[in-house]
Amino acid sequence: MISMGRLFPHQPIADFGAALFCALGADREEADIAAGALVQSSLMGHDSHGVLRIPEYLGFLEDGSLKPRATMEVCRTGRGTASVDCGYGFGAVGGQRAMEVAVELAREQGTACVITRRCSHVGRLGAYVESAARAGLIALATCNSPVSGHFVLPFGGRAGRLATNPIAYGLPSGGEPIVADFSTSVAPEGKIRVCLNEGKPVPEGWILDAAGNPTTDPRAFYGPPRGGILPLGGAAGHKGFALGLLVEVLGSALAGVSATDGTVRGNGVCLLVVDPATFCPLEEFLRRINETILYIKSSPPAPGVREVLVPGELEFRTRNRRLAEGIPIDEPTLSAMSEWARRLGAHIPWKEGVAS
Amino acid sequence: MISMGRLFPHQPIADFGAALFCALGADREEADIAAGALVQSSLMGHDSHGVLRIPEYLGFLEDGSLKPRATMEVCRTGRGTASVDCGYGFGAVGGQRAMEVAVELAREQGTACVITRRCSHVGRLGAYVESAARAGLIALATCNSPVSGHFVLPFGGRAGRLATNPIAYGLPSGGEPIVADFSTSVAPEGKIRVCLNEGKPVPEGWILDAAGNPTTDPRAFYGPPRGGILPLGGAAGHKGFALGLLVEVLGSALAGVSATDGTVRGNGVCLLVVDPATFCPLEEFLRRINETILYIKSSPPAPGVREVLVPGELEFRTRNRRLAEGIPIDEPTLSAMSEWARRLGAHIPWKEGVAS
Repeated sequence: MISMGRLFPHQPIADFGAALFCALGADREEADIAAGALVQSSLMGHDSHGVLRIPEYLGFLEDGSLKPRATMEVCRTGRGTASVDCGYGFGAVGGQRAMEVAVELAREQGTACVITRRCSHVGRLGAYVESAARAGLIALATCNSPVSGHFVLPFGGRAGRLATNPIAYGLPSGGEPIVADFSTSVAPEGKIRVCLNEGKPVPEGWILDAAGNPTTDPRAFYGPPRGGILPLGGAAGHKGFALGLLVEVLGSALAGVSATDGTVRGNGVCLLVVDPATFCPLEEFLRRINETILYIKSSPPAPGVREVLVPGELEFRTRNRRLAEGIPIDEPTLSAMSEWARRLGAHIPWKEGVAS
Repeated sequence: MISMGRLFPHQPIADFGAALFCALGADREEADIAAGALVQSSLMGHDSHGVLRIPEYLGFLEDGSLKPRATMEVCRTGRGTASVDCGYGFGAVGGQRAMEVAVELAREQGTACVITRRCSHVGRLGAYVESAARAGLIALATCNSPVSGHFVLPFGGRAGRLATNPIAYGLPSGGEPIVADFSTSVAPEGKIRVCLNEGKPVPEGWILDAAGNPTTDPRAFYGPPRGGILPLGGAAGHKGFALGLLVEVLGSALAGVSATDGTVRGNGVCLLVVDPATFCPLEEFLRRINETILYIKSSPPAPGVREVLVPGELEFRTRNRRLAEGIPIDEPTLSAMSEWARRLGAHIPWKEGVAS
């Protein structure tokens, strides 16, 4: 395998990740889905949801919090609704199954709502809505996290009450779909940790200290006592907060789960899917979408901006580039994967030392 | 009728508005719904969607763009989907009918998606999701506007491509529901107009001039050449833009309508409703929601903030106060309504001159 500096062809990494998952009890199919989903995130440029999670998942498999060969149970709760009990198996497998069910129900009923129960880390929401959009459907996805991840402040508050609670949607276009996927906080926690590690201030308007005062010092966020991340929107942060609260309710209360229960694990996912063909011939819908994309992109860019992009466009460009050039993997992740491979007797698909 | 300064008891104003609509051909039922919806917006503190629209609607009735006694046609397009052709009748009547259909379908199927066609100004979206939430359902609503209202910039652009495209949702709680209703731009156009009229600068981060440079001068927004309003989110404005684009597609392409057609009028509404009882006993869901509300509100407030509020809480307080104290009506609106009343031979429910 050729290592291009710190870039690696993606498929051998996916195969390697899957082999490691299998070595800890996963079957090949679920291992391929889970490792493939992480590698896809790296291809799309979402490295925080990418291969750096492989060692993390291995830890979860070892400590038993992530269950290999879990049984997924689909319960149809209404004509257009279902819940998928993921049994704390791989989140990517549960999320994919939930979206398959939602797409099937939406084709049948025109629209569908599917939620998950006992779902491990579901990863990049955009992946699921992208698959639905490629099947010609409009899909929305939301995902909450339990109380241990409640870093995000309610509007006007100074104690975290929500996670970064992302929202994603996918719209078919005939070609590459429109795919949006974003947290309802102003920034994810990971970016604040990067600033902490690099000893740099965070941008203004991201965080408050524990007393509720604005700060740019990441140490004032981590504490103790801990501060919080502001909701999306700045002075209009009530809007980001409202979105985050919706995601929380769709992920917890709707599944009958408490938002404050410290024993809850994993993500609460809610999928809403609409078949546009029930309202308008699909060809016409796709023509309208493409007309809208062209109209949006016909806006001249503001000074300092090259081009107006629709959601997902940048990620698909990144994917095309990384399919050719490889995906970046940082040194700690490489070391951790090598260490797991040695312990589990798996073949390491790169020459050690080459990447550093 | 007692005029409390510039405050008026709401019911006589609703009756007065309805009488004026009837004088221009409306039947009493639709007139009551339309005038009642505007007065409710004033009660909730959303004056921009309130009684100041009564003279505007009268103008639309007179010029024929708003049709009294329009036939609403409900077309069930799938088991869980329907479209409501509002025939350019009162938007509040069409919006209410669309939500009734969505609630009915969601009770039957577990979830529903209903869109409108040929819908006049639909008014405050929060009203519709509130009614669904009071019926025990989770409701989302979006609403686009045609090209003449495209004041909002795509992220990175300097020419308007979207309207302020609001999103609303309602969640049942057993008591007052959670009701969020907000534009996906950083601010509505109306607030910039107020600054223009008062000769004041707008807050930083709201608008760009026609060249795409940040400005606080409202004249640089109105031009000509016209500038644009920034999407919600500031540096993370790609998120607000993504939300606005979703609202646009749900309001236009999904109905087979072009986003760029200058002859399109009115709002394109999309309603998504979920019956939580399909996933979880309603009692348990309501208990979880109330637990979540208490948890959110238990966050100590940041300096300068009295209390953390959930979406809708402020509006319900305003409504209670205004039910007792009356609703504010500005002088131009009073004059315009008086003028219409004289022309149409309607009784004016206040002593003229008292309010000024």
